[in-house]
Amino acid sequence: MGRRHAENVRRLVPEARLVAVADAAADRVRQVATELEIDHSFQRLEQMLDCKEIDAVLISTPDKFHAKAIELAAAAGKDILCEKPIALNLADAHRALEAVAKAGVRLQIGFMRHYDPAYAAAMKRVEAGEIGDPVVFKSVGRDKDVPPLAAYQSGINGMVFYNNTIHDFDLARWLMRDEVTEVHSYTTVAIRPEVAQYGDVVASVVNLKYAHGAIGNVESYVQAIYGYDVRTEIVGSTGSIFVGSLEKTPATFLSAAGGTHILADHFLSRFADAYLAEVIDFVHNMLHDLPPRVTGEDGLRALGIAVAAEKSHIQGKPCKVTAEAES
Amino acid sequence: MGRRHAENVRRLVPEARLVAVADAAADRVRQVATELEIDHSFQRLEQMLDCKEIDAVLISTPDKFHAKAIELAAAAGKDILCEKPIALNLADAHRALEAVAKAGVRLQIGFMRHYDPAYAAAMKRVEAGEIGDPVVFKSVGRDKDVPPLAAYQSGINGMVFYNNTIHDFDLARWLMRDEVTEVHSYTTVAIRPEVAQYGDVVASVVNLKYAHGAIGNVESYVQAIYGYDVRTEIVGSTGSIFVGSLEKTPATFLSAAGGTHILADHFLSRFADAYLAEVIDFVHNMLHDLPPRVTGEDGLRALGIAVAAEKSHIQGKPCKVTAEAES
Amino acid sequence: MGRRHAENVRRLVPEARLVAVADAAADRVRQVATELEIDHSFQRLEQMLDCKEIDAVLISTPDKFHAKAIELAAAAGKDILCEKPIALNLADAHRALEAVAKAGVRLQIGFMRHYDPAYAAAMKRVEAGEIGDPVVFKSVGRDKDVPPLAAYQSGINGMVFYNNTIHDFDLARWLMRDEVTEVHSYTTVAIRPEVAQYGDVVASVVNLKYAHGAIGNVESYVQAIYGYDVRTEIVGSTGSIFVGSLEKTPATFLSAAGGTHILADHFLSRFADAYLAEVIDFVHNMLHDLPPRVTGEDGLRALGIAVAAEKSHIQGKPCKVTAEAES
Amino acid sequence: MGRRHAENVRRLVPEARLVAVADAAADRVRQVATELEIDHSFQRLEQMLDCKEIDAVLISTPDKFHAKAIELAAAAGKDILCEKPIALNLADAHRALEAVAKAGVRLQIGFMRHYDPAYAAAMKRVEAGEIGDPVVFKSVGRDKDVPPLAAYQSGINGMVFYNNTIHDFDLARWLMRDEVTEVHSYTTVAIRPEVAQYGDVVASVVNLKYAHGAIGNVESYVQAIYGYDVRTEIVGSTGSIFVGSLEKTPATFLSAAGGTHILADHFLSRFADAYLAEVIDFVHNMLHDLPPRVTGEDGLRALGIAVAAEKSHIQGKPCKVTAEAES
Repeated sequence: MGRRHAENVRRLVPEARLVAVADAAADRVRQVATELEIDHSFQRLEQMLDCKEIDAVLISTPDKFHAKAIELAAAAGKDILCEKPIALNLADAHRALEAVAKAGVRLQIGFMRHYDPAYAAAMKRVEAGEIGDPVVFKSVGRDKDVPPLAAYQSGINGMVFYNNTIHDFDLARWLMRDEVTEVHSYTTVAIRPEVAQYGDVVASVVNLKYAHGAIGNVESYVQAIYGYDVRTEIVGSTGSIFVGSLEKTPATFLSAAGGTHILADHFLSRFADAYLAEVIDFVHNMLHDLPPRVTGEDGLRALGIAVAAEKSHIQGKPCKVTAEAES
Repeated sequence: MGRRHAENVRRLVPEARLVAVADAAADRVRQVATELEIDHSFQRLEQMLDCKEIDAVLISTPDKFHAKAIELAAAAGKDILCEKPIALNLADAHRALEAVAKAGVRLQIGFMRHYDPAYAAAMKRVEAGEIGDPVVFKSVGRDKDVPPLAAYQSGINGMVFYNNTIHDFDLARWLMRDEVTEVHSYTTVAIRPEVAQYGDVVASVVNLKYAHGAIGNVESYVQAIYGYDVRTEIVGSTGSIFVGSLEKTPATFLSAAGGTHILADHFLSRFADAYLAEVIDFVHNMLHDLPPRVTGEDGLRALGIAVAAEKSHIQGKPCKVTAEAES
Repeated sequence: MGRRHAENVRRLVPEARLVAVADAAADRVRQVATELEIDHSFQRLEQMLDCKEIDAVLISTPDKFHAKAIELAAAAGKDILCEKPIALNLADAHRALEAVAKAGVRLQIGFMRHYDPAYAAAMKRVEAGEIGDPVVFKSVGRDKDVPPLAAYQSGINGMVFYNNTIHDFDLARWLMRDEVTEVHSYTTVAIRPEVAQYGDVVASVVNLKYAHGAIGNVESYVQAIYGYDVRTEIVGSTGSIFVGSLEKTPATFLSAAGGTHILADHFLSRFADAYLAEVIDFVHNMLHDLPPRVTGEDGLRALGIAVAAEKSHIQGKPCKVTAEAES
Repeated sequence: MGRRHAENVRRLVPEARLVAVADAAADRVRQVATELEIDHSFQRLEQMLDCKEIDAVLISTPDKFHAKAIELAAAAGKDILCEKPIALNLADAHRALEAVAKAGVRLQIGFMRHYDPAYAAAMKRVEAGEIGDPVVFKSVGRDKDVPPLAAYQSGINGMVFYNNTIHDFDLARWLMRDEVTEVHSYTTVAIRPEVAQYGDVVASVVNLKYAHGAIGNVESYVQAIYGYDVRTEIVGSTGSIFVGSLEKTPATFLSAAGGTHILADHFLSRFADAYLAEVIDFVHNMLHDLPPRVTGEDGLRALGIAVAAEKSHIQGKPCKVTAEAES
């Protein structure tokens, strides 16, 4: 994703100038800088943050370095667009937010679905009151490929709740315009028991309870062999919205065996435009002193739901959602 | 539904002869008998059960009389097709099943979705191993019209778990070929608080845990103003099946405002053929001494899930599922 | 279809009493009469028409006997519901219509799509002015199974234009509320050259020109191996309507190979309800002295289009459409 | 489109360097050069063609200048990617192709649908023999917005057959892997009679006859108020392919009024990626001495179909298709 973001900024965001890239892998960072004709490349974030020309940074590291990178960038006085999740625990998230507040910089979290045309159209209808009072929130997030075991071993990203499902936890707040107060999780490792030793799961269903009476459920499944499958419903008292489509291309093959579609295979084939729109909007807002569309507080609260969902998975009972660090 | 079943048997099930109908409402039962040219009509079930010509009965009373009606019919030596649920509590269900066992008659429960072409096609794929190991079960059951308050006051049917969601609890067992061992429910009365006094809810999400490691979620919503909306997914290790469609007719209206479909409005516009196929199959099996396709045990176990789901709703914690009467 | 109509009338049309059936095949007609508990059966239409108890007849013979059967039934003073086409040439059609006029009976032609909920919903929108002025009419009619060569040899039905496409020619008039004045056909026998000797074709595209400026195209294909596929579009100045769906059941199978639907296989799986609604409406209108919904004139004019389409196929140039017998 | 192509080449085609842009409008060309950081800008094509650094040109002028621009670019020894149509008449097309042949340069015509993932997937199935022998080709091309009258008055583009439908004529050859030998057109100006004076039409249906027995139909409609609607079917003896989708985003709004989609509105919202893939492929092939994917001959033959379709529209009879200049 780092490279994708760099390409987007370099080529498709005329308001921005991409001054430098940084990556611990020396070869990789030099190659990206060369290919994208970027003036500077660094191996350490601290070096890059010393550049006076840099106004804002885009953080796209492994998840467990997000919070620390935010702290450093804030201390250096840069505005920040950071990939989700803001952190892997609430204490780290609070430290990052305090650094941001102290430095007086701005922070946007990369919940790029806010920029997807279908989700944005859905939110517009919600805000216009067209579905009445929200009653039920439903979301499904299924990734296509079986994650390699090395991904679990490295421990650089959190379990599925922090890495994938956090998008749905964010949508659960954003589209319902309400806070989740309690969750209950069932999880399974049935078809791949070896991931359990890393504290992770293959699939989960998380029941949601909202502050103002609504309820919901979020499902995640990390190895849906048939395709990348993301769907969300907001069910309201006077109408509902369904966002989702499985088809990769509008081509249907009809034979005696039936009608067959090609299914979507990857989140970038679904959300490539949203990632670009996100960066364009962030750059525009920073240049014109406008607030970010997805705030650090949004990142913190989505993280709070993920933390409670994991706690419920471990303890086997419903858990209160909090954004407090000590929980 | 009683009248619909009577019409089906009278007109479309050549293997059966509809000898009599019974209904507490004298006028109504006479009118049905006249219109459908049925020889006998009764006000009391016991009178009808005295008819020697009758081999089998179809029970389509309010839910709370199901168990007692099964007991009486069994005692009279009739084979039985009884609408779901088998009873509104496990003790009644056990009494009914004991009466059936003692009388040596056969009992089928009216989970008619087993006879729907889409669900039947799904089950065929599951049985053929095409989806591999089942991992996640998802089901949504939304009724269109706001139920009149009188329906709650009468108390003749159980809360939504017993009356509607029990179809999904049955599918949860049938399509996954596994037993649900624990459930967790969140419910809401937010947009109609007055139903709470009758112990009922407007919407619910029920998390499911299976004996062999799978998980699931069932949602119900009783007043989806946009239409009757029933959808089920069985997610497996090598494939998945999605059953569901919102459209009432294949007509799309395209205008500057967008493309608009007419949505389904009622369970009979979706399942009319399944109700008929169910009766034809029941009659055929009874005449040829074949076992019923959906057994009393199936009715009991689906009821066990509903009982646990209601308990979780009341107690606010996950509850074990049991078919034992004392739970 | 004769048997299907008989079953519908016998079992599902309470306003009608099915007095008799007639069929040249003695065994078959006796069997149907027995199975459906019909009092009388005949081998010759003339015998049946002598029955004084009979008020109306439903004609479902091979196409080439339609016109003669209408003449006989009219002469006997019976109201008539006759399957499409009204005749296989315009001279026969005129003779039939004259007999009907002379006898003062009523004639309905079996264009049952007028009774299909999707087509009826489309027509309602057209009549409400929701699509503005009609500009383009498009229709596709594809049958699934390769017709046996015996069907061509018997010559009892006309070529594809008279037997299948005539439904689309009828829709072309009905939904556009305008008359077709000229047509141009291309046809092919490429994948089954042996049908050419019977004057028939495997596929056709027929361009349409309307009296008030609209245009259109109708395609037919008799051996679409993938399924029964009927779709119609009415394109208007302010909106359009698309009628059609390929899916037999709302079940989708998702695997690494893609998403697969079961496709529709037969016109009865699509239009079974329309056939019933047609008979119910006909019986009701006859009993209450109301005019038939689809008239003999409608049958004549659709036939006129088919005749011109065949002429264009033979002559290789556009042909005027006329309902005159001598053309 | 010129600007879109320039942006694509400048930002998203790393193998290419965009040396110069040319446009008769002095202000516009300078602005584009500045915004996209292009070194040179010209008002006359001839000036730009003098640049020795330039290896290849992309022609995106009004249609009537295409052929002349190809001639000039070929004479200057540049490889060429030219927007469709190659010319507005066959004589001009031949002159352009002769110039290309004489100069020994390469010419690609901008039928960018060859690069659309759905069309490309369809062609792959056709080539793999999965649909058997092609029997029927169907295509619909509907543009959303009512074209301003000034567009007709300027005369810089040809009528709808040359400007829009030529995409479908190209698909008719490409996907069927056969040549169209004869066409028959009906057209209408019914809802906008004033375009007739410019020799243009509002809608058309064009019947197609192929060399090896297949048939087809292409419809165009330039003011489909509901949206941009492009659909193509290839019907074969053992299977069929349907390419097309109306929906702009996968968001469905469900209310008591039905289920509503947002429809596509513009060809760039459907084919933006195809335009980019086209340029990337062209650049790659030129740099590696590979033949262009869509040749000048392809441009000529699609034009031949358009010419015959217009002739049929004028003469009211079927017309042979030829690529000969004198026809």
